Amino acid sequence: MSNSLKGRFITVEGGEGAGKSSNLDYIRNLLSSAGKQVVFTREPGGTPLGEAIRDLLLGHQHTGMADDTELLLMFAARAEHLQQKIKPALQQGQWVLCDRFTDASYAYQGAGRGLASDRIASLEQFVQGELRPDLTLLLDLPVEQGLARAGQRSEPDRFEKQEMSFFEKVRAGYLEIAAREPHRVKIIDASKPLETVQQQIDHVVTAFLEQSGG
Amino acid sequence: MSNSLKGRFITVEGGEGAGKSSNLDYIRNLLSSAGKQVVFTREPGGTPLGEAIRDLLLGHQHTGMADDTELLLMFAARAEHLQQKIKPALQQGQWVLCDRFTDASYAYQGAGRGLASDRIASLEQFVQGELRPDLTLLLDLPVEQGLARAGQRSEPDRFEKQEMSFFEKVRAGYLEIAAREPHRVKIIDASKPLETVQQQIDHVVTAFLEQSGG
Ligand SMILES: Nc1ncnc2c1ncn2[C@@H]1O[C@H](COP(=O)(O)OP(=O)(O)OP(=O)(O)O)[C@@H](O)[C@H]1O
Ligand SMILES: Nc1ncnc2c1ncn2[C@@H]1O[C@H](COP(=O)(O)OP(=O)(O)OP(=O)(O)O)[C@@H](O)[C@H]1O
Ligand SMILES: [Mg+2]
Ligand SMILES: [Mg+2]
Repeated sequence: MSNSLKGRFITVEGGEGAGKSSNLDYIRNLLSSAGKQVVFTREPGGTPLGEAIRDLLLGHQHTGMADDTELLLMFAARAEHLQQKIKPALQQGQWVLCDRFTDASYAYQGAGRGLASDRIASLEQFVQGELRPDLTLLLDLPVEQGLARAGQRSEPDRFEKQEMSFFEKVRAGYLEIAAREPHRVKIIDASKPLETVQQQIDHVVTAFLEQSGG
Repeated sequence: MSNSLKGRFITVEGGEGAGKSSNLDYIRNLLSSAGKQVVFTREPGGTPLGEAIRDLLLGHQHTGMADDTELLLMFAARAEHLQQKIKPALQQGQWVLCDRFTDASYAYQGAGRGLASDRIASLEQFVQGELRPDLTLLLDLPVEQGLARAGQRSEPDRFEKQEMSFFEKVRAGYLEIAAREPHRVKIIDASKPLETVQQQIDHVVTAFLEQSGG
């Protein structure tokens, strides 16, 4: 099943340091080589207002933020992103490649923070209507390994400062989504060296391109 | 009917320049004289994060903002406001006096922008559960008169730059709420001189205090 628009919508998900950002260029190249026009973007963010909301979410000024507020801010940024960037690109037949999307709300705010998933679903419906990603690559690896990778990189943001048990719940949340939607969500073993990860990605994206008639 | 908490929740609504801010001190004094502890606050805002969201909403950097984004940001600020400030105060038996609340979302984003009121109701339910104001004073006056008053004051914000027809819809939206909920929402004729406005407010607040057993 695909969205009703002309382009395809591909998202990349995973916990901290799973390798999402590292592999996006690789995926973009696979799609470009197949002749697709690719728009690359990320969440939270992707628009000027969305990036301003991202700063509120990831910064440390608002550490005591209510869980509902966090979720609503994520979806406010998402509404802007969909209307200003994602939908127009898909309507023009471009392929949209996005670093995190709504699965992250289920994994972080749902499984991680403990918000009921039907409350998240009500916002998903509110903001997206019927629009869902056509393909999601879930980069999965043990929490400690991901945090070790992320830790070498930069100062922790508001999410990266959570406890280990939070990230374990996030990982389990992601795997639950993949189990429920195996056709859309493809699990990539991200614990492997980069070339092995890329081989898996290559396999998944090639199959998706064939299935999309491209 | 009142909220299930110990304090009372009173909101002041109306279009641009209706006199909401001018009359808040007067209302606060009426309540204080009756022995109530009053917490005064405003929307969008009321918390540090809410005020940061207010800046995104009222500033001019994000003029093309999607209507859904505007609505979700309003409710994100509201979720924070309720959890950090309004509910704790009500639980302690304080009276909360708020410059604008959810009726403004129905009037501005609903009637004004044209968002369906059942979509607003779904967010109201999401964020507030059963909590509603106990009393709302709606300061009503002709749009031109309000804009003339507001215009003398400061540079227009992102809402104040709307067209006349927008504000006419907002006014009609507010009056519709008052017609539907006459017990909660009391219309004050704000076109009159300040003393006459205050006499009307005095009348409404005194009746409410009596009815609240205070
Ligand atoms: N397969 C891999 N093996 C070893 N190191 C890797 C691998 N993939 C990525 N890395 C390294 O791990 C670190 C985190 O990678 P990256 O920033 O791509 O993760 P991310 O999923 O985007 O993280 P975040 O959730 O913080 O955005 C980087 O230093 C990257 O070079
Ligand atoms: N009854 C009145 N008669 C004449 N002028 C008034 C009256 N009430 C308020 N004003 C004046 O109108 C201007 C706008 O009032 P105020 O700022 O209280 O409105 P407001 O409803 O808070 O506006 P906003 O929606 O912009 O917050 C102020 O200059 C105020 O002094
Ligand atoms: Mg990244
Ligand atoms: Mg005011």
